Amino acid sequence: MKLRFLRSGRLAAVAALFAAVAGPGRADEGMWLYSAPPRAQLKAKYGFEPTDAWLEHLMKSSVRFNSGGSGSFVSADGLVITNHHVASDDLQKISDEKNNYLRDGFLARTPAEEKRLVDLELNVLQSIEDVTARVNAGVPAGAVGDAAAAARRKVIAEIEKESLEKTGLRSDVVTLYQGGAYHLYRFKKYTDVRLVWAPEQQIAFFGGDPDNFEFPRFNLDATVYRAYENGLPAKIQHYLKWSAAGTKEGDLTFVSGHPGSTNRQFTMAELRFLRDTQYPYIVPRIKRLEVLLKSWGDRSEENARRAKDDLFGLQNSRKVYDGRQAGLFSPAIMGPKAAAEKAFLQQVGDRPEGAAVRAAFDRIAESSLAQAKIYRRYRLLEGGHAFMSDSFTFARNLLRAGDERPKPNGERLREFGDARKASFEQTLFSEKPVYTDLEIIHLAEALTFFAEIAGFDDPVVQQVLAGQSPRDRAAALINGTQVRDVAFRKKLYEGGAAAVAAAKDPLIELARLVDAESRALRKEWEALDETKKQAHATIEKARFAIEGPNRAPDATFTLRLSYGPVKGYVEDGKKVPAYTTLAGLYARNTEHKNKEPFDLPPRWVEKKGALDLSVPFNFVHTPDIIGGNSGSPVVNTKGEFVGIIFDGNIYSLVGDFAYEDVQARALSVDCRAIIESLKKVYGADALAAELLGGKKP
Amino acid sequence: MKLRFLRSGRLAAVAALFAAVAGPGRADEGMWLYSAPPRAQLKAKYGFEPTDAWLEHLMKSSVRFNSGGSGSFVSADGLVITNHHVASDDLQKISDEKNNYLRDGFLARTPAEEKRLVDLELNVLQSIEDVTARVNAGVPAGAVGDAAAAARRKVIAEIEKESLEKTGLRSDVVTLYQGGAYHLYRFKKYTDVRLVWAPEQQIAFFGGDPDNFEFPRFNLDATVYRAYENGLPAKIQHYLKWSAAGTKEGDLTFVSGHPGSTNRQFTMAELRFLRDTQYPYIVPRIKRLEVLLKSWGDRSEENARRAKDDLFGLQNSRKVYDGRQAGLFSPAIMGPKAAAEKAFLQQVGDRPEGAAVRAAFDRIAESSLAQAKIYRRYRLLEGGHAFMSDSFTFARNLLRAGDERPKPNGERLREFGDARKASFEQTLFSEKPVYTDLEIIHLAEALTFFAEIAGFDDPVVQQVLAGQSPRDRAAALINGTQVRDVAFRKKLYEGGAAAVAAAKDPLIELARLVDAESRALRKEWEALDETKKQAHATIEKARFAIEGPNRAPDATFTLRLSYGPVKGYVEDGKKVPAYTTLAGLYARNTEHKNKEPFDLPPRWVEKKGALDLSVPFNFVHTPDIIGGNSGSPVVNTKGEFVGIIFDGNIYSLVGDFAYEDVQARALSVDCRAIIESLKKVYGADALAAELLGGKKP
Repeated sequence: MKLRFLRSGRLAAVAALFAAVAGPGRADEGMWLYSAPPRAQLKAKYGFEPTDAWLEHLMKSSVRFNSGGSGSFVSADGLVITNHHVASDDLQKISDEKNNYLRDGFLARTPAEEKRLVDLELNVLQSIEDVTARVNAGVPAGAVGDAAAAARRKVIAEIEKESLEKTGLRSDVVTLYQGGAYHLYRFKKYTDVRLVWAPEQQIAFFGGDPDNFEFPRFNLDATVYRAYENGLPAKIQHYLKWSAAGTKEGDLTFVSGHPGSTNRQFTMAELRFLRDTQYPYIVPRIKRLEVLLKSWGDRSEENARRAKDDLFGLQNSRKVYDGRQAGLFSPAIMGPKAAAEKAFLQQVGDRPEGAAVRAAFDRIAESSLAQAKIYRRYRLLEGGHAFMSDSFTFARNLLRAGDERPKPNGERLREFGDARKASFEQTLFSEKPVYTDLEIIHLAEALTFFAEIAGFDDPVVQQVLAGQSPRDRAAALINGTQVRDVAFRKKLYEGGAAAVAAAKDPLIELARLVDAESRALRKEWEALDETKKQAHATIEKARFAIEGPNRAPDATFTLRLSYGPVKGYVEDGKKVPAYTTLAGLYARNTEHKNKEPFDLPPRWVEKKGALDLSVPFNFVHTPDIIGGNSGSPVVNTKGEFVGIIFDGNIYSLVGDFAYEDVQARALSVDCRAIIESLKKVYGADALAAELLGGKKP
Repeated sequence: MKLRFLRSGRLAAVAALFAAVAGPGRADEGMWLYSAPPRAQLKAKYGFEPTDAWLEHLMKSSVRFNSGGSGSFVSADGLVITNHHVASDDLQKISDEKNNYLRDGFLARTPAEEKRLVDLELNVLQSIEDVTARVNAGVPAGAVGDAAAAARRKVIAEIEKESLEKTGLRSDVVTLYQGGAYHLYRFKKYTDVRLVWAPEQQIAFFGGDPDNFEFPRFNLDATVYRAYENGLPAKIQHYLKWSAAGTKEGDLTFVSGHPGSTNRQFTMAELRFLRDTQYPYIVPRIKRLEVLLKSWGDRSEENARRAKDDLFGLQNSRKVYDGRQAGLFSPAIMGPKAAAEKAFLQQVGDRPEGAAVRAAFDRIAESSLAQAKIYRRYRLLEGGHAFMSDSFTFARNLLRAGDERPKPNGERLREFGDARKASFEQTLFSEKPVYTDLEIIHLAEALTFFAEIAGFDDPVVQQVLAGQSPRDRAAALINGTQVRDVAFRKKLYEGGAAAVAAAKDPLIELARLVDAESRALRKEWEALDETKKQAHATIEKARFAIEGPNRAPDATFTLRLSYGPVKGYVEDGKKVPAYTTLAGLYARNTEHKNKEPFDLPPRWVEKKGALDLSVPFNFVHTPDIIGGNSGSPVVNTKGEFVGIIFDGNIYSLVGDFAYEDVQARALSVDCRAIIESLKKVYGADALAAELLGGKKP
């Protein structure tokens, strides 16, 4: 599952396994289930009591983008609004040599001009049903391990099939609280979706990487679609009324969307592993790779083109990891986490499961320490950091395919399982361009990194370098291997282990040289992971027994409700105001002399005089969000649409393992800026009128 | 001493203490003394026998720039040629609001237009006299330590004074082979020097950082001065005849210049320390700082301006350290070093001093291991990496000045000695701008780095952070300190320790918190350095006794002769040709769409049609050079000027500790490109005629 949030890939998707450890009553934390909304918290802190109707309306106005993101209905005639960066793949797919809608934007002036998208599916949640009892009943008493899992899969499949047949709705059983609860989610689907309006990518992502995860911001990160049914605009009962007035600082806001995954169940021992072992390895590594690609890219335009995607990914990762590392070093983040863990251990202490829970915490701590000991070597060898290049990936996959495929399915390494065969082959036989020069640069850096981290005198380093310098060895390997030839890969894959051995390809032989140690490290690593997983299940079961649904479960890319006020913050002793304005956009453009990525689309230069520059553009607020929330509607207490989530600031990046509301903020596009732009820049008066009026004018 | 080489600051000046360990007969290594030229090597390998007249002529045509660089006489009427980047400070000093000669270049069309420089002194070596016997005789038998050193200083001063009085020439006694020999160098001085021609900086340093230390290159890195005596152009007997034909691949070339310092005496133990301890710390640190400043600079034009100098310095250092690390990981570099060390130990083994020399090697190895143990903490605390910011430097200097100044001069930390007082105060009271925002960014990064390297749970890290995150703590410290106020610094400096304590400045108190441990680390570090220094003296004495002047001593910023052929090389399996052409300049400019730093001065765009684009522009050859060689003349076997050294490639950066000629190359501007540019781009026909004819036309 690809989670669109911020920009696709800006936040890596991490499997959400367990639920949060944050103590009760902490700030406005929580991505809440619609079936267990935070009524008490809202009433106590904000004096606000959402009615069932309010909740149902917001739930049914919320839209899940199966491509990985969120959105909402904003007119009775089927208008759906989401982020431009959620829509970008759709825009790419309908663009051609003549029309680059992603870059240049689009406006349908009549219904006939609305452009049907290629393969987008929208889901709208209709109901939530607790099926925990039935799921648990489906697992025979005493069943454990695989048998229990198989029984559970069977009963879940039955429930889903039965519901689909009965209701005609897409029906998914969702696992919550690491098995503490099972809920049946039913969705209405829309598969005929058409493009109504998109701005230019330049204004949607104004400021590019330098402003990524930052605030103040000036992004018109929005796109409008229309859902159709039976060839006509869908008639929508539940859609959000557009607020003409918008918000002001201090207003309570709600975010209704689909956060992808969180890891708030991490114990302090696991956070220390991140802080003391993983991040001190990852953070400098990302930066050295960024420097490598940036400086290599600066050498020529063609180099820059070849390195561009990887470089953007590294810059994005660098911000993510810097932000998370800052969180791990922040007492404001880690203090409450430690206190909550301590409180939970005390709370559970007197209960019958107390000893088992304490033992589970200990096992996680021991496993984390054991992983810390092998971490670097595991990443270097099995993670491939010592040989990082597309060529090495091809070489190792060929080697291992030869060794793994003759084994029974169940005994193979995961990625060689029958279920993954098609996608494995698609990757192995990919025709994507692999550049020899960039491969040498990458492998030389990787071998240098290997020698630096493992030590030059390490016997494996010496064997790998084979008497050459990292750069010479990289050039010899990359120039000597045939794996960049698709036909060669096909031949070896089909020929199996014997053909692989007979080829005597230097890079495959390098992969073979380290394969035994690499596999051993993986085995050890995964065993420790399994130990942690089982320990977490023990802990979460005890926690759910104590807290029940009074705590939001970790994110699962299903609909959740978050809340919090519009609120500026303080950075380096200076106040960061909650709102930017259109005037700020032009000021930032001027400050950067219209240079990329701070340049404006021509239309925005021409129409400046027509705009009310005091209109709020982007704003910050405190709701608990994460990757997958991109495009989520922001509503006020009246349930009116006041903005759209598009990013988090740098402090929000700790959201994977902790929530804070001192500096962490969600970033949204203000509803007023969307209307002002549609009217004054895009001449889209009819669309603006439909949004403001809630139906076709 | 500031060594101009490449760009000023591109290669750091490191004190040259000892001589090289490279075995005899290795390639073309050596920065040879004119008093002991490599006659045997040249004859054996190239069949070339330089006559005494040939050597004297080249020696007396060579010019030392006391600002840190090299050059040569190229006409009977006093023309001197050097690099544009050696001249850049001079050009800056004579520029004003109206005339930016550094950026825009300059041409004097008549002698009257030649612009006198502000404070440049040129030295021309006239003679070398071995005074070893007299120096050693001046040291009483049995004198050791300070007494011996004082006696040696006294006799050297006598020799210098006597020579000056007798000859009227600047007279310096130079210590070679770590005391193995003492030579008296006499120089003729020129202090009236005038600017004749300089190109635009854009063409002198075309390609900027991306092309720095790279090849192919396209730099017109040359500037022409004229030396005057008694208000008239100096009449020069020894000047280099300009070659109209230039060189071709394979031609033997000589470089006559002033290499600043080398450290080829490093033992394998010291090289392992660099490889296993120092570089794995420094290389990632430089890269993270580069990423920090680059990404912060991208946020605004003003940020970029503020970060620019530091960023260029980091980019330059990154290439230097990457290049040297590559050397440390290269068997081609380290193999011969190891073999030479082993050979020397065998050679010395049977001699009476054998045991002492072996013990000296052991002491160096032990000291290096001991330094490795404390290295990171030493750099973090005493090196200030944990608090890197101008504000912290002010704070610590104020704290230590208060503690050190009341002590007797001899007991103070070095930088607080009376001899350094004026320059210390100049730095402390500097009015240079210090930006609060950049200071916070720097300190936050430094505190993060400290927590990452020393570990977050380290007691000192905890005391330093004082319960805040690195970023919050940095903001609090930088916003809270008064040390950026010059008047405050003056007040505390004058008030001494009591005033410093009374101020309770948060950053000074932070410096105080770590001062005891920091001083202890420094004491331990310097004691180990002293042990190594003494051991090196033992080794070098033994080496000189065996090898004598058949080995070139380490560089001392005195005139040396290097040699080697014009020769391309192979990089990543691809041939890099020895020459570039003017056509290549335009191709590279087009490839980069005239974008900075690949943009051309307007004149070069206009005059393209007039140029013979096949003229060679820059070339690579193998002579042994290093920082200080910038501007050195390159001559052929006839002693004719064929080019001018301006850079080394990335592989040459190991030159500090090793010479190789497989990929390491010196980079020179071809004499033919200089003439072609003068005639066709600058309309400087008279100057071109004087260069070609050797006198004013």
